[in-house]
Amino acid sequence: MRLSRYFLPILKETPKEAEIVSHRLMLRTGMIRQEAAGIYAWLPIGLKVLRKVEQVVREEQNRAGAIELLMPTIQSADLWRESGRYDDYGKEMLRIQDRHEREMLFGPTNEEMITEIFRAYVRSYRDLPLNLYHIQWKFRDEVRPRFGVMRSREFLMKDAYSFDLDQEGARASYNRMFVAYLRTFARLGLKAIPMVAESGPIGGDMSHEFIILARTGESEVFCDKALLDLPIPAEDTDFDSDLSPIVSEWLSFYAATDEKHEPTRFEAEVPAERRISARGIEVGHIFYFGTKYSEPMKAVIAGPDGVERPVHMGSYGIGPTRLVAAIIEASHDEAGIVWPDSVAPFDVGLINLKAGDPMTDTACGDLYDKLRAAGRDVLYDDTDERAGAKFATMDVIGLPWQLIVGPKGLAEGTVEIKRRATGERHALSAESALARLAG
Amino acid sequence: MRLSRYFLPILKETPKEAEIVSHRLMLRTGMIRQEAAGIYAWLPIGLKVLRKVEQVVREEQNRAGAIELLMPTIQSADLWRESGRYDDYGKEMLRIQDRHEREMLFGPTNEEMITEIFRAYVRSYRDLPLNLYHIQWKFRDEVRPRFGVMRSREFLMKDAYSFDLDQEGARASYNRMFVAYLRTFARLGLKAIPMVAESGPIGGDMSHEFIILARTGESEVFCDKALLDLPIPAEDTDFDSDLSPIVSEWLSFYAATDEKHEPTRFEAEVPAERRISARGIEVGHIFYFGTKYSEPMKAVIAGPDGVERPVHMGSYGIGPTRLVAAIIEASHDEAGIVWPDSVAPFDVGLINLKAGDPMTDTACGDLYDKLRAAGRDVLYDDTDERAGAKFATMDVIGLPWQLIVGPKGLAEGTVEIKRRATGERHALSAESALARLAG
Repeated sequence: MRLSRYFLPILKETPKEAEIVSHRLMLRTGMIRQEAAGIYAWLPIGLKVLRKVEQVVREEQNRAGAIELLMPTIQSADLWRESGRYDDYGKEMLRIQDRHEREMLFGPTNEEMITEIFRAYVRSYRDLPLNLYHIQWKFRDEVRPRFGVMRSREFLMKDAYSFDLDQEGARASYNRMFVAYLRTFARLGLKAIPMVAESGPIGGDMSHEFIILARTGESEVFCDKALLDLPIPAEDTDFDSDLSPIVSEWLSFYAATDEKHEPTRFEAEVPAERRISARGIEVGHIFYFGTKYSEPMKAVIAGPDGVERPVHMGSYGIGPTRLVAAIIEASHDEAGIVWPDSVAPFDVGLINLKAGDPMTDTACGDLYDKLRAAGRDVLYDDTDERAGAKFATMDVIGLPWQLIVGPKGLAEGTVEIKRRATGERHALSAESALARLAG
Repeated sequence: MRLSRYFLPILKETPKEAEIVSHRLMLRTGMIRQEAAGIYAWLPIGLKVLRKVEQVVREEQNRAGAIELLMPTIQSADLWRESGRYDDYGKEMLRIQDRHEREMLFGPTNEEMITEIFRAYVRSYRDLPLNLYHIQWKFRDEVRPRFGVMRSREFLMKDAYSFDLDQEGARASYNRMFVAYLRTFARLGLKAIPMVAESGPIGGDMSHEFIILARTGESEVFCDKALLDLPIPAEDTDFDSDLSPIVSEWLSFYAATDEKHEPTRFEAEVPAERRISARGIEVGHIFYFGTKYSEPMKAVIAGPDGVERPVHMGSYGIGPTRLVAAIIEASHDEAGIVWPDSVAPFDVGLINLKAGDPMTDTACGDLYDKLRAAGRDVLYDDTDERAGAKFATMDVIGLPWQLIVGPKGLAEGTVEIKRRATGERHALSAESALARLAG
């Protein structure tokens, strides 16, 4: 993409209203714009990152055997009356009346609707296990939305729902999502730690939050440092196999949010030098809640004995919008964002130091075409801004690689590449740069 | 995808409530499920088609130079008060009060919001032309939603908005979208005809609807048969060049919806044997509306003379959810849907005629792996259903190719391939079948 034709509204000044670094950087780099309290538009470069995060989440859900569908944003209140949650949910639920005065709502989550879909079609244990997920915009009418997309009212959520014949099957489904989440966050460059947690308004008796450590986190967390170095399950993990050894290893180390924290256990189980007490950001939450919804909503299946029983369910959430902010919290420096390769909005930022100079334009155009032909997504700064401003822009938007081309270097037969994360710069021939960046 | 692990709830009976064939077939093949009046969940096979349609739309928008962003579904009423449309829009707008009793709405379209975004960042003619689009769920509270996703309340829309210094520039932007639309619909296997149309509640003085001919269409249309054979602009069309010759050619033939129809002109301009009078489905709508929003909302830009003036705008809509239904209306037979290759939920349906038979299972497993390795998306019916039911399922869901494998054929060294659109079947070796389907 040529910057002269793109829409990348970089702000010169740091927005003062933003309290945390991810919010500031997202506003400054033109990733998002607030349209109402807690409601954001995702501008082009922000949307690219969001879609990449979403795609990593999707790939790992699919790998674990979950199947994607898409439920609507607007739901009928009647559905929520079946589970009893319509009255319980409180003011966070955005309630709506349509033109015929039917009570509707903007879905804050989808347990009821997915249970309705399940019971409409599935009758037999032979169709289980089943895990259905969607990635859809949700709305929770927070009293005080803040921190940008970290705690917004309209947000994107991946929510998966598992269906099993019994608790043992449900546990296996839970383990698959547990492992999928470990892989998902690792691919996003995050060290996320599963922690025992309160199950919250969704209910149930088994629940883990996945938390990344960050100074700006909203919750206080306590864990064993060993968790930061545990190996992540590999890409070829067999999700049909028994995953409990992996899950058990992760759960063998102490990790808890403040609600579940037990100081005496923490001190007894974790050697002093391995005790981490820090702030954390919740990036995922998994629940097993048995028959909480299937019983009142009569989602029953026939077992091998022909007897019908309520299906056992779990739900598994990740917020891609919040994740974008969390990644920035975990990966930035004074000059701006440092995107992990997996979610960077572009792979390479190509800087033309003298736009309008025929030799430089030709060299840049050639590199741009060749990198794109090799499948790289390139942001080409072909504008007539001065060099300093171009460097600052590339640094703040945080593309993994910069390729810097100017008449002086070209006269010596060289261009420069810069790795954003380390700041290392190398002068080398255009061919070598291409081999490095397109390889 | 192995069918035994997928979620494909085929209905045995044809739903009676559905009035048109696309609605019936979408319900029968488990593409969608109604969750409330005019509100649908997209089940896995439906979502796959929807995403493919969306991706074709996106690729052609990008090719034409439009830039993707994503605006939220919930908007502030204040924004719509700026344009004066909050009171005008009527009952189709879903109005909402949040917990602080602020007036909000579920966006039925985004002219106001995109104008707000534009005016926040763009000041100079040097940043023009600019075309920003998003693909987002919209809500219009139709009195009587019907025909499934053809006229639903919650629906997906691609809406693009162009910004230009003056009417001449806006005309060029309009032409780029005109050509992009011709390409988009052609890639979806549709013959869409641009027709002069009323501009509707969005207003403006130049507007075309893109309409496909179908018996179940809601509007009556009149056009010259020559339009059905006009060449579609090629993939390498230069969108920086003057596209008016292409647009003029399309507009040189008579085409109008009933609101704009002029019978005397129709008879004078079109020879009797080329007169088409038929029913049509609107699948796209493009508008030029000048400064209708930029003036009241003060979205001004400085021209080369330094003088500020309201920016000229157009908007360009396509409904991917409706398009899915329109494609089915245009492409089905008595056995079910016949998907064009470009949007089929899977490329190949692999039918194992004797699941459980070791030789057949091995042959199928091998073909399945090899087709997937070649990048084909395969639905593998590995269930123990009887052959007749398997054939009927593959026919009704309409995958472009079927690959049929049974013990009898294997003993003779053959498998069968079937082209869904023509019904042609060929027996050939597994290697030849692979070469044909993976090539």
